[in-house]
Amino acid sequence: MLTHRLLADGSRTRAPDELIVEEPLEVRLDGVRVATTMRTPGDDFELAVGLCHGDGLLGGAPVVRCRYCATGSAVDSEFNVVTVETGGKAPAAEPRIGVMSSSCGMCGTTALDDLAGRLDPLPPAAPLDFQIVIGVAHEMAERQPLFQATGAVHAAASFDGAGEIGHVREDIGRHNAVDKVVGRLLLDGALPASGQGLFVSGRASFELVQKAWAAGFGTLVAVSAPSALAVQAARRGGLTLVGFARGGAANVYSPADLDRR
Amino acid sequence: MLTHRLLADGSRTRAPDELIVEEPLEVRLDGVRVATTMRTPGDDFELAVGLCHGDGLLGGAPVVRCRYCATGSAVDSEFNVVTVETGGKAPAAEPRIGVMSSSCGMCGTTALDDLAGRLDPLPPAAPLDFQIVIGVAHEMAERQPLFQATGAVHAAASFDGAGEIGHVREDIGRHNAVDKVVGRLLLDGALPASGQGLFVSGRASFELVQKAWAAGFGTLVAVSAPSALAVQAARRGGLTLVGFARGGAANVYSPADLDRR
Repeated sequence: MLTHRLLADGSRTRAPDELIVEEPLEVRLDGVRVATTMRTPGDDFELAVGLCHGDGLLGGAPVVRCRYCATGSAVDSEFNVVTVETGGKAPAAEPRIGVMSSSCGMCGTTALDDLAGRLDPLPPAAPLDFQIVIGVAHEMAERQPLFQATGAVHAAASFDGAGEIGHVREDIGRHNAVDKVVGRLLLDGALPASGQGLFVSGRASFELVQKAWAAGFGTLVAVSAPSALAVQAARRGGLTLVGFARGGAANVYSPADLDRR
Repeated sequence: MLTHRLLADGSRTRAPDELIVEEPLEVRLDGVRVATTMRTPGDDFELAVGLCHGDGLLGGAPVVRCRYCATGSAVDSEFNVVTVETGGKAPAAEPRIGVMSSSCGMCGTTALDDLAGRLDPLPPAAPLDFQIVIGVAHEMAERQPLFQATGAVHAAASFDGAGEIGHVREDIGRHNAVDKVVGRLLLDGALPASGQGLFVSGRASFELVQKAWAAGFGTLVAVSAPSALAVQAARRGGLTLVGFARGGAANVYSPADLDRR
């Protein structure tokens, strides 16, 4: 489309502008609706599977099949509902309300306890080589074609200990991009992602640490800042958490005792 | 806290680093849980009220009272549950699953139709002076103290036709920052925000347009890109949508016929 470009001096021009697509996706698990997310269409099965996995909804049950809902009346809308099927082996799905459900009494500590109750700590491992991590962040800046076109998307990517980048996904939602990477690995039978790192283009929130930990990544690398709760969660899980990975440098927030390693 | 700072040459330093706080907030409407969001504590009543308003859960019912849940066992957690009370005048609250609930058949067009069915088009008004808009974006870059300290938060702000900035809120979630501004205006009896603009520090998604439109803002100004669906929604509602408002320039995505104004 053509956009009106305005300058501070009051002048106007028209310029072509590419916009990122955003559409709702409803995710069902064994027929029960568990989430609706605004996402950039593409890799929808991965997104649905990764979302169910990160939220602990699969309970270890294997994914038998993914399919688009076929009862929509409009052609477009058939591709905005995905059902993940485990043949009923996943625990009875409870729709999630916001990011987690909890009784009154919830707080950050409760959230951490919930997570630690559901996920085993990651196996001890040497942190990835930080020069490699910095290199991955640098390389990823060049590997985000949708961002370069639109300026409106986040990216996530898996990478190995040698700095080799695996799956790269872009989406208007940072969480979706991560879910798509995790879902791809799960569908490939490649979880847990032991010894691998997960790169995200934005900040590291509690939820992103949760997703990385659930998928078994040893390291989470964010281009921007982590939250305090994200740091606590990473330390609890034994996840190496790197933030501000840009401009040839990075900060390490977890482990806390890096000096002694 | 002290962070480990790593440079590409392998050297390490330790430097003080301030982290943004992120805690879950559960929102209840007349006692029914309607959402849980990860947020930066502070202005929680505003957040709860703004969230209910933006999602159309109040149905025009006045907010009688807001209070923290007082039954939590831990002191901390008492401040992570907020109940918004309308004395039962709000429509029976249905927990939201993700961003919207819909039957199979949902798509971007359905989302637009749902929104247009719930919200009247904004009254026709001359767009704000774009030089003023660019000035607001410039000024807001200086008015985000949490961002300057942590690099991890988004900001939202209301401003009037003269470029005077009203309420400024920062939060780890962009939507939360907007909800806090809207909630403050609602509690002040200052909605709809006719003739005012809403500034957001990041991108403009469909949901942000929905929140701005529901609050009656005539203009939404985003520092980064809008999505295609956000542009469609703004045009549908008669909302002026400005993106990439930075560096002394901006793009106007809605109205489509700016040339003829």
